Amino acid sequence: MLKHILLVPVIFITFSINAQTTSYTKDSLQLRKIYNLTLTEGEAYNWLDYLSNNIGGRLSGSRNAQKAIDYTKAELEKIGLDSVWLQPVMVPKWTRGSREYSYIETAPGVTRDLNITALGGSVSTPAGGAKAEVIEVKGLEELKEIGQEKIKGKIVFYNRPMDPTKISTFEAYGGCVDQRYSGAEEAAKYGAIGVIVRSLSLKQDDYPHTGSMSYGNLSKDQRIPAAAISTNDANYISGMLKLTPDAKLYFKLNSEVHKDVESYNVIGEIKGSEYPDEIMVVGGHLDSWDLGDGAHDDGAGVVQSMEVLRLFKEMDYQPKRTIRVVLFMNEENGLRGGNKYAEVAKQKSEKHIFALESDAGGFTPRGFSFDADDAQFAQILGWQKLFKPYLIHYFEQGGSGADIGPLKQGDIVLAGLRPDSQRYFDHHHAATDTFDHVNKRELELGAATMTSLMYLIDQHGIKHINTEQKDKF
Amino acid sequence: MLKHILLVPVIFITFSINAQTTSYTKDSLQLRKIYNLTLTEGEAYNWLDYLSNNIGGRLSGSRNAQKAIDYTKAELEKIGLDSVWLQPVMVPKWTRGSREYSYIETAPGVTRDLNITALGGSVSTPAGGAKAEVIEVKGLEELKEIGQEKIKGKIVFYNRPMDPTKISTFEAYGGCVDQRYSGAEEAAKYGAIGVIVRSLSLKQDDYPHTGSMSYGNLSKDQRIPAAAISTNDANYISGMLKLTPDAKLYFKLNSEVHKDVESYNVIGEIKGSEYPDEIMVVGGHLDSWDLGDGAHDDGAGVVQSMEVLRLFKEMDYQPKRTIRVVLFMNEENGLRGGNKYAEVAKQKSEKHIFALESDAGGFTPRGFSFDADDAQFAQILGWQKLFKPYLIHYFEQGGSGADIGPLKQGDIVLAGLRPDSQRYFDHHHAATDTFDHVNKRELELGAATMTSLMYLIDQHGIKHINTEQKDKF
Repeated sequence: MLKHILLVPVIFITFSINAQTTSYTKDSLQLRKIYNLTLTEGEAYNWLDYLSNNIGGRLSGSRNAQKAIDYTKAELEKIGLDSVWLQPVMVPKWTRGSREYSYIETAPGVTRDLNITALGGSVSTPAGGAKAEVIEVKGLEELKEIGQEKIKGKIVFYNRPMDPTKISTFEAYGGCVDQRYSGAEEAAKYGAIGVIVRSLSLKQDDYPHTGSMSYGNLSKDQRIPAAAISTNDANYISGMLKLTPDAKLYFKLNSEVHKDVESYNVIGEIKGSEYPDEIMVVGGHLDSWDLGDGAHDDGAGVVQSMEVLRLFKEMDYQPKRTIRVVLFMNEENGLRGGNKYAEVAKQKSEKHIFALESDAGGFTPRGFSFDADDAQFAQILGWQKLFKPYLIHYFEQGGSGADIGPLKQGDIVLAGLRPDSQRYFDHHHAATDTFDHVNKRELELGAATMTSLMYLIDQHGIKHINTEQKDKF
Repeated sequence: MLKHILLVPVIFITFSINAQTTSYTKDSLQLRKIYNLTLTEGEAYNWLDYLSNNIGGRLSGSRNAQKAIDYTKAELEKIGLDSVWLQPVMVPKWTRGSREYSYIETAPGVTRDLNITALGGSVSTPAGGAKAEVIEVKGLEELKEIGQEKIKGKIVFYNRPMDPTKISTFEAYGGCVDQRYSGAEEAAKYGAIGVIVRSLSLKQDDYPHTGSMSYGNLSKDQRIPAAAISTNDANYISGMLKLTPDAKLYFKLNSEVHKDVESYNVIGEIKGSEYPDEIMVVGGHLDSWDLGDGAHDDGAGVVQSMEVLRLFKEMDYQPKRTIRVVLFMNEENGLRGGNKYAEVAKQKSEKHIFALESDAGGFTPRGFSFDADDAQFAQILGWQKLFKPYLIHYFEQGGSGADIGPLKQGDIVLAGLRPDSQRYFDHHHAATDTFDHVNKRELELGAATMTSLMYLIDQHGIKHINTEQKDKF
C-alpha cells in the first residue's frame, strides 16, 4: 500500500516538470526566432533613418510632428495590423524662432560668444536681448541664502553638474533636472531678469542641451527667459566669474509660446485570439526636441515599438491578448499624449494588463525596470534566464516610463526598457541627437528584447495580485 | 552539559559570519572608492587622447610604436611605481607604402573604384598592379570543390559575411577570420594571383578593415597579394559578378616585408608587501594597426591597465602581492611581446598567479571571461555580487586574451575584460578606430572594473587547485 501512496506524487511531479520543460523550450526557441529575425530582417533601423533624416526634429505642434504622424501611420498600415488609428489630443506649441545669441563681457567691448539654447517653453528676451551681471549658484535652495537684494536685476546661473559617480546616468540627471525645470520660476521670485542653466550632460563639449521648463503659477509678466549653456561654456563662465565677478552676460532668445493645437497619438493593434479584452501596450514618443533629429529621444523607442508588432506579423504569431503599439505625442513638453491615452482607456473601460515603454535611447539593451508588486515581479523573474543568451540581465523593480505612467491602476504591470545609459546624455536634447549616433545592432537588440517580453506576457499573462490577495484573505 | 556543547558551534558560526560581513563591507567600500576615483579624477582618457591624437597608429617596428613606448614608460615613471622597465623583443616589420588602389572593370574602360586596404603581412602586387577575373567564394573549403582549373590565374574573393545573429560579435568574427588569415595561403595553392577579402565588420560602409594574415609554409615565390574590401564594395562586386561574371578586378598594393627589428614591452610594477613573489599582471597591447589611431584596439586596454596601478598609488593602497602592468608589443601581427614576456617569466622562475587583459575595446564593461578551473571559478563567483552596483554581470568561464595566453601553466588564472561588443567591429582595424569613438565614461568604467578585480584577487588570493587536489587524493 505504501508503494501506491508514494507513486501518485512522483507521477505528478514528473508530469509537472515535463510541462514546464516543454513550455521553457518553446519559449526559448521563440525568443531565438525573434532575435534572429530582428538582426537579419529588421525594419527598425530603416524606419529610424526616415524619421531622422527625411523628417527630422519633431517638436509638438510642428509641421515635422505632423509628418511623423502621417509617416508612422502609413507604415503601420503596411504591416497588416487589425486596425490603425489616430487619437486626437491638444498639445502645447512653442517655437524657438531664429537662433539664440549670447556672450559674456568682462570689460567694455571685451566679449566672448557663448553656446546657448532656449529652454523649451521659455519666453523670449526683450527684442534687444537681456544683459546683466551673473550670480552663480549650485541649486534652487541657494537663492534663499543669497537673498533678493543680491539677485534682483541679475541673471542667475545654475551650475550644479551631473554627478559622474552615479553609474546610471539617469540618476545623475534626476539629481540636477530641477535647475532646468524650476530654475526660472524660482529665480523670478527673487527678481532675477533671466536664467542660464548648465547643460544636463556628463560630457564636456560645446553643445547646449534644451529641455522642458515650467513657470509654475507665475503670471505672464513675472516670467523670465531661460536658456541652457554648454558644459564647456559653463566651466568657462564659472572660472571667469572668479576673476571678474562683475562680468556681464548678454543673451537673446526669440522663442514664442502659441495657443494649443490639435495633434495625435498614433495607435495600431493586433486583436487577441483568446483574451481580446486584455490589452498590452508597447510604445515610445513620436515628438522630440528640435535641435537634433530625435533619433535616440525617442525615435528609437518609436521604431522599436513598431517593430514589435511587425515581428509578430512576420512570424505569423497570433497573440492571445490584444497587442497595441502607441506612439505618444508630446512627451517632451506636456505629456498630453500619455494623459489622453489613459483618459480614453478609462472612458472606454478598457482593461490594460501590461504596458512597456522604450524612452531611454537606442543603445544596447541591458534589461527592464518593472513597476509591479512583489508577486508579479517574482513571476517575471522566472523568465529572466530565457534572456541570458542575449546578455539581458537587468530585471529590477522601479519606474517605467512617463507616457505609460498615467495608465497605472489596479493589476497593470508597467515596464521600461533599460539600455546602457552611458552615452545617452551626451546626445539628450542636443543637436547631436542624430541618426549617425545610433548603432543598428544596438537598436535591433532593443527591439528583439522588447518583443520577447511582450511575447512572454502574452503567452503566460500577468498575475492578478489584487484578486488573488482578496481570495486569500 | 548539552548547553555547553551547543554553545561552541553557535559562537563559531557567529564569528565566522561577522568576519565575512566585515570583509564584504570592506571590499564593497573599496570598490566604491575605486569607481568614484576613476569617474572623477581618471587619467585613462587623457592618456588615450595623447596616444591616439599626438602619436596615432602604432604598427610594430614603426616610429610611432617607439614613440608610444617612450610615452607610456615616461607616464608610468610619473606615477611613482617601484620600478618601470623595457623588455626587449624582436618584432616583424611590415610597411603599407603608399595608398592602395583598386577598381572593377565590367567592360573595357568601364570601371568603378573600390575601397581596399592591404592585409598586414601581404606582399605587394607587381609594380603595375594585378588584374584578373574574380571567383567569389564563401570560404576556404569551397576552393577544393571549384578546383585548380577554374581558380588558376584569377583573383579569389572571399565573401562570407559575419553572422549577425551572434549576440557576441567576437563569435561572429571568429566564424569568418579564417578567410582573412589563411585565404591567400589556400588560394595560392590553387594558382590564384591574388585575394580580396570581405571586411570583417557587421556594419555596411565604405571602410576596409585590415588585419593579420599568414602564408603558412608557402615559399616566397608562391606568395600572392591579399587585400580587404569594404562591406559595401563586397556587396557591390557580388551583385555585379552575377550580371557580369567576366568582370575584371584590378588592385595595386605597395606593401613591403622588412627584416625584424628590436622593440619593447613596457613594464611597471608595485612590489607586494606580503607575498612579493606572487605576481599579478594587468595589460593590453601597445601596437595597433596603422589605418586609424588604435584608440579601441588597443589604446583603451593600454590606458586602462596603466590606470589600475595609478589608482592603487592614488588611493595609497599597498598591495599584498606584486602588481605588474605590461604593455605588450606586437599583438597584431606576431604576438612576439606576449611570447617574450612569458619566456622571460619562465627563465626567471617567476610565479604568476593571475593575469588580466583588456583587448576588446573601450566600451561599457559587462564583466569578465575566466580561464580558470571550476573551484577557482567558484571562488571568483563569490565576488560577483560586489560588482552588481556597477552593472557588471558577466562572469563566465572561457578564453582570456592573446597576449597573456602564453603565461598559462599550473595554477594561474587568466581573465579578459568583456565590454559590450556591439560596436567593436565597426571600428576594428579600420580608419574609424579613432579617439572620437571612445566614450570617456565607458573607458573609465572599464578601468574601474579591472582595478576592482585586481584588488579582490590581491586581497584574497587565488585557490591553488592542483595543490589542493594533490592533498585530497
